[in-house]
Amino acid sequence: MKSDLDRLMTERGLDAAVVFGPDGFSPVNAHFNYFVGGRHIIGWVIKKRGSPAVLIHGTMERDDAAQTGLELINVNRWPRKEIETLFPNPFDARVEMNRRIFTDLGVTGKVGVYGAGETGHVFALLRQLEKKVPGLEIVAEGHRDLIQTARETKDDAEIEAMRDVGVETCALIDDVKKFLQSHRSRDGVLVRSDGKPLTVADVKRFAHGRLVERRLEQADDFIFSIGRDAGVPHNRGNPADPIPLGKTIIFDIFPRRPGGYFHDVTRTWCLGFAPPEATKAWQDVKDAFDLSVRTVKPFGKTHPVQLAICEFFESRGHKTIRQDPAHQEGYIHGLGHGLGLDVHEQPPFPTFSDPGSTVGPGVVFTIEPGLYYPSQGFGMRLEDTYVCDAQGAFHSLTPYPFDLVVPMA
Amino acid sequence: MKSDLDRLMTERGLDAAVVFGPDGFSPVNAHFNYFVGGRHIIGWVIKKRGSPAVLIHGTMERDDAAQTGLELINVNRWPRKEIETLFPNPFDARVEMNRRIFTDLGVTGKVGVYGAGETGHVFALLRQLEKKVPGLEIVAEGHRDLIQTARETKDDAEIEAMRDVGVETCALIDDVKKFLQSHRSRDGVLVRSDGKPLTVADVKRFAHGRLVERRLEQADDFIFSIGRDAGVPHNRGNPADPIPLGKTIIFDIFPRRPGGYFHDVTRTWCLGFAPPEATKAWQDVKDAFDLSVRTVKPFGKTHPVQLAICEFFESRGHKTIRQDPAHQEGYIHGLGHGLGLDVHEQPPFPTFSDPGSTVGPGVVFTIEPGLYYPSQGFGMRLEDTYVCDAQGAFHSLTPYPFDLVVPMA
Repeated sequence: MKSDLDRLMTERGLDAAVVFGPDGFSPVNAHFNYFVGGRHIIGWVIKKRGSPAVLIHGTMERDDAAQTGLELINVNRWPRKEIETLFPNPFDARVEMNRRIFTDLGVTGKVGVYGAGETGHVFALLRQLEKKVPGLEIVAEGHRDLIQTARETKDDAEIEAMRDVGVETCALIDDVKKFLQSHRSRDGVLVRSDGKPLTVADVKRFAHGRLVERRLEQADDFIFSIGRDAGVPHNRGNPADPIPLGKTIIFDIFPRRPGGYFHDVTRTWCLGFAPPEATKAWQDVKDAFDLSVRTVKPFGKTHPVQLAICEFFESRGHKTIRQDPAHQEGYIHGLGHGLGLDVHEQPPFPTFSDPGSTVGPGVVFTIEPGLYYPSQGFGMRLEDTYVCDAQGAFHSLTPYPFDLVVPMA
Repeated sequence: MKSDLDRLMTERGLDAAVVFGPDGFSPVNAHFNYFVGGRHIIGWVIKKRGSPAVLIHGTMERDDAAQTGLELINVNRWPRKEIETLFPNPFDARVEMNRRIFTDLGVTGKVGVYGAGETGHVFALLRQLEKKVPGLEIVAEGHRDLIQTARETKDDAEIEAMRDVGVETCALIDDVKKFLQSHRSRDGVLVRSDGKPLTVADVKRFAHGRLVERRLEQADDFIFSIGRDAGVPHNRGNPADPIPLGKTIIFDIFPRRPGGYFHDVTRTWCLGFAPPEATKAWQDVKDAFDLSVRTVKPFGKTHPVQLAICEFFESRGHKTIRQDPAHQEGYIHGLGHGLGLDVHEQPPFPTFSDPGSTVGPGVVFTIEPGLYYPSQGFGMRLEDTYVCDAQGAFHSLTPYPFDLVVPMA
């Protein structure tokens, strides 16, 4: 959590951390959002070890900047007109502005760099800064960087925010369930009041409307995939498909409060009835889910949990990813992932190696076993978001029932 | 446009271009979206000079990958299990996977790197690859990189897509206007049917619902700012504010088709009536807008247009950014910007220097003069999206009237 930053910087020998908040990346710039609370700001957050974080911002965003609670410096402290006149190439001007900011604020020594950016531009800028700022050594952390690590444990306010978005997301799932239930079927598919088949596009349009009403934001399109498509884990669902009875539907949604924390939940539904092979596979997935919840331990590693679930699925006769990552059928992905200001963050549940990832107090993560049989026309996944509390107990943040069959009138 | 890529690569001496499409960045990864059409894919696009672009994708996204029309390589061609077992640190495994891909596909020589990423991770990865891939020299372009430059001119299909999103966006603006007009006022503010004041939050909720209905996606929250807040260009509007009569409202919205091209438009409205100082300033902005349209020339530079508009505003007694970038009142930003798969792309209309930006055939850009007087409680901006056609004529893609006053019943 944020209060760990100085300790983590000491452990890593970092003198300062610079978080870039560039134009256009705000929807996904989680490291920057962590400091500015999701507000729309172009600028830099600079945190020197032992000092509070400072936000450098433009004049046009001064109202948003004032709301962050950070120490503020208006970028007009540096002479943009002079710099851009001296350096007509915008990249050269950008280097010079950064050089002056780093130099004037004493951002030297071992400095970590964070925030979203355009690959080539980032590489070009940092190489120049290393040459031009005396004493600057950029420490590029490729795994569990400083801010990822701080974000990996949530403080009480963050957990409350994640509880809140979980409750609202479950209410949304119920909206969609009731919407489906409000339709009649004809020839095995749902039909609208105008007599045409209800489609995946219709369901998504309804859900997006409800997301707005519930003040939720779905950063990406969510998954509502049917039958064979549900057998391909990241297939989002074909918009033109009708909604059939008796086929598995994977509904995987991951909204957030605007600019804030994500929730991530998956249910697998069969409308009206479930065919026997789906019921059997669903029970295996549900058993794997329950086994996962029993297997995670406070401060325990995630890698052995993933292996235990592979072993379990193999004992039920399914292929798994640990046998071969090229498998397209069976249990073919990781068990879960950390969740917060990103949908995928630390810790992972890796299959092939143990990078030391653990789930301790304050960690929020998903558990999401699934089985995929596209050649048999079905796939399924069950997912809740979990938190480990201060006492080491695990609690679901996803208060919604698991039932496979959605009763239809 | 895309058909320019080989020529541009030759001019720049680039042997290959690698576009990273990493996890989580799809909503903003415009360079990657340019190749995969906004589909949800984790992977790499690799284009060697003179060869078609190749997409390396994971098994879970094989359905989306097949729809891109690109040549495909499943990432399972490389032994993930072996790599992750040999390299337990996920960063080391990532370096090794990239090393093998670069080496096996002959991605060597001068290679440009593109796509959105996390700053420190990008820097760490590229430094390692330069060391580990024989003959690899990473060319990091900080300004008008290869793909920005290709994207700067749109082909016919892209312009049609941008025309389409413009028409739909204007229909949405009209939805909002009619929504406002459907409300009565009491004590100078709009009231809802339940007797409570209509708020900015209510208007945004309505607009977001309509965005969904119209199959538009607003990547970020749009601007609906009133009075003094409209005097701060990037203030998004205070959600709790009531909607008053007779104050300037800046409505600046920039939606896109899901995963596709953006439109960008701003109107400034006064409900019922406009106070004299706003009417006078609005006329100055409208005159500046018309002057801009007359001043842009096919193949002409953008920098002199910005200077001409500064001169014009100064002749009407307003302060401008060219006098001092720290000004908070008057005309305090650039005249416009390129538009496409990003809201802000090439070319800019810079104030202090001339990087050579021009508007020629196929370029789509905004024109958006504004005046800001927060101390007097108002601000205003007018913005259309323009395209330069093959004959060098400029056309607005924003078919919507400019009127300041919105008549109320």
